Amino acid sequence: MPADPKPPVRLGEFDLIDRYFKPLASSLPGAFGLTDDAATACPDEGNEFVVTTDTIVEGVHFLGSEKPEAIAAKLLRVNLSDLAAKGSVPSSYSLNLALPSRIDDPWLQAFSAGLAAEQETFGIGLLGGDTVSTPGPMVLTVTAMGQVRKNTALHRFGAVAGDGLFVTGTIGDGSLGLLAATYKLPEMEQAELDYLRGRYEQPQPRVTIGPNLLGMATAALDVSDGLIADCGHLAVASGLAAEIDTITVPLSDAAASAIAAEPDLLETALTGGDDYEILFAAPETMREKIAALAAETGVPITEIGRLSEGNGVTALDADGHPVFFENPGYRHG
Amino acid sequence: MPADPKPPVRLGEFDLIDRYFKPLASSLPGAFGLTDDAATACPDEGNEFVVTTDTIVEGVHFLGSEKPEAIAAKLLRVNLSDLAAKGSVPSSYSLNLALPSRIDDPWLQAFSAGLAAEQETFGIGLLGGDTVSTPGPMVLTVTAMGQVRKNTALHRFGAVAGDGLFVTGTIGDGSLGLLAATYKLPEMEQAELDYLRGRYEQPQPRVTIGPNLLGMATAALDVSDGLIADCGHLAVASGLAAEIDTITVPLSDAAASAIAAEPDLLETALTGGDDYEILFAAPETMREKIAALAAETGVPITEIGRLSEGNGVTALDADGHPVFFENPGYRHG
Repeated sequence: MPADPKPPVRLGEFDLIDRYFKPLASSLPGAFGLTDDAATACPDEGNEFVVTTDTIVEGVHFLGSEKPEAIAAKLLRVNLSDLAAKGSVPSSYSLNLALPSRIDDPWLQAFSAGLAAEQETFGIGLLGGDTVSTPGPMVLTVTAMGQVRKNTALHRFGAVAGDGLFVTGTIGDGSLGLLAATYKLPEMEQAELDYLRGRYEQPQPRVTIGPNLLGMATAALDVSDGLIADCGHLAVASGLAAEIDTITVPLSDAAASAIAAEPDLLETALTGGDDYEILFAAPETMREKIAALAAETGVPITEIGRLSEGNGVTALDADGHPVFFENPGYRHG
Repeated sequence: MPADPKPPVRLGEFDLIDRYFKPLASSLPGAFGLTDDAATACPDEGNEFVVTTDTIVEGVHFLGSEKPEAIAAKLLRVNLSDLAAKGSVPSSYSLNLALPSRIDDPWLQAFSAGLAAEQETFGIGLLGGDTVSTPGPMVLTVTAMGQVRKNTALHRFGAVAGDGLFVTGTIGDGSLGLLAATYKLPEMEQAELDYLRGRYEQPQPRVTIGPNLLGMATAALDVSDGLIADCGHLAVASGLAAEIDTITVPLSDAAASAIAAEPDLLETALTGGDDYEILFAAPETMREKIAALAAETGVPITEIGRLSEGNGVTALDADGHPVFFENPGYRHG
C-alpha cells in the first residue's frame, strides 16, 4: 500500500514522484522525506520567515515548449528574487504541480533535475507539495520561504524624501530578451541575442545583495513589472514622488546595442519588466557602503534617481526634461 | 500606478482583488495588507509551523458549478484537516488562483465571502497569494500553516505494536455523500441524502481534537484516501501491521441506512475517502483520556482496531474473518 496521499490518476506516476521529488526534500528534516501529510518549519532563533508565492500558467507565463529544467529554474528564481529583495536568505519551498496527461517520465525527470540544480545553487530544499492531474494547461506554483532577523525585512514602504534610488545589475535585458527569444530583433548579432535571451530565460535573483541591504536600504522590491512601474510601487507605498534619470539607468552592452539600433527600445527596456534586479531606496549617506557592497559582490549597483515629497513617477532625459511612455506599467496575467 | 504586482490581464480585475482579498489579510500584520511582494510569519515562542498544501482542479476535484462559497470552504478545510491531524492549531494560509476569464465579479465576491466565513470559523488569516488568468479550468491552491510546540507534531510514523487505532466522528459519509450528490442513491430519504451530501461538500476538520492528541496519540493522519488505505499509510510508516474490526467502524445513521439497503456500500464507506476525520494510534492506557476528550468536545472517538508487529492491513468481519476489498486504496488525481 502506498505511503503517500493522492497519487495522480495515471498508473505509475506515483512512483515517478516518489523517485524524482523525494530526493529534493532530503536536506530538510521537517519535510520528512515527503512521506507525511505536512511538513514542519521553524526559523532560526531571532529570525522570522519571509513568504512569497507565484503561479505560472502554460500559454500565459511560459510557452511549455521550453526545456523542463528552464521552466523549473524560472519558477524558483522569480520567487527567490522576491525573497532576496525583502532582505531574506532563501531556505525552502513547496511545489504544486497541475500536470496534463502528456507530461511524461522524461519531462518530470528533467524538471526535477532542474529543481535539484537550483537547490544546489541557492542552498534551498523542497518542503512539500501536491501533484495533481489537469485536463488544461500546466499550472505550476511555488511558495518559497526565506529567513530574516525579526522585524528587519525590507518592504515597498519605508523610504523617506531625499533617499536615492538604486538598482542592481542591468535593466531591460528581460524585456529585450523576450523579443530576442521570439525573433523580434532580427538585426542583432547572435552573441548579443543569446545574451539577452539568456537573461530573460534565466533571471539572476540577487541573493548576494538582498540580505546585505538590511540596515542600508529603507525600502526595496524586485523589478518584475518594469523599472518605471516598480519605481512607482515603491514611491506610492512610501507616500513619495520618484524621479528617474533615464540616462543613468544601467544597460548591458547587448541592450545598449539594441537601443542604439532602435531608440524606441529604450521604452521597452525601462517599462518591460522581468528584470529581477533589486530596486531600493537608501539615504545618500549610504553611497560609500553601497559602492563597497557592489565591489565586494561583483554585482553593479547604480544610482538612478531620487525620492521627494509628492507623488508620481517622472522619468527625465539627459537634459532633465520629462519623458512620457505609452505603457508605463507592465501587466501580465 | 497600482501598488500591486502582476494584476491579471482583464481590466478591472485588479480592483476586484484589491476589494475582495485585501480585507481577508487584515488580521495578520505580516501580510502587510497584501501590498508588499512577500509576507512575514513567525511562530510563537517555543512553537514551530506545520505546513501543508493542496491543489484542486475544476473538473477533477470539483465540478466548478458548486457555489463559490462551498468551493472556498472545501479548499480551506481539506488543508485545515491535515493541520489538525498533525496536532497543530491552524493560523494562516496563502492562496493561488488560476482563473479562466468567465470568472466574474459576483463569483469572486461569493468566493471571498466564503473564505471570510471560514477564517472567522477557524481563526485564521490570509497571508498572501497570487491570482493569474488561465485558458484552462480553475486551478486553486492553498498552502496552510498551523502552529505546534516544537518537535511535538504528530506524524504517520511513531505508532508502536500494541497501540489501538482510533477514529473521530463517522466514516463513509464523504464517499456516500458523493454518491448522494450525483444521484446514485435513489432509494434513500431526502433528509439522509442531504445529510450525506452536506458531509461530502463541507467536511469538518477536527481542529478541536487534533491539538489535544499531543501526548496522547503516537501517530495520526486525516482520513482522505479512505479508512483502509489510511490505516495502511499509518501502519507502513510505523513499520507495523494493522487490523480493523469493521463492525466497530462508526457510521452515521444515514450511512448505516444506506448500507442496510445495499450492503456493498460498506466497501464504499471503508475505502472511499474524503472523510476528513482523524485516524490515530494510541496506547491502550490512553483509553480513558481519549473517552474524556470525546466527552469534552462532543466529537465521538471510536476504537476500531489495533497495530501489531508485521505488515499489511487486515479488515475483519463480525466473526473475526478477513474481508477482502476490490479497491482497498482510493486514488484521485
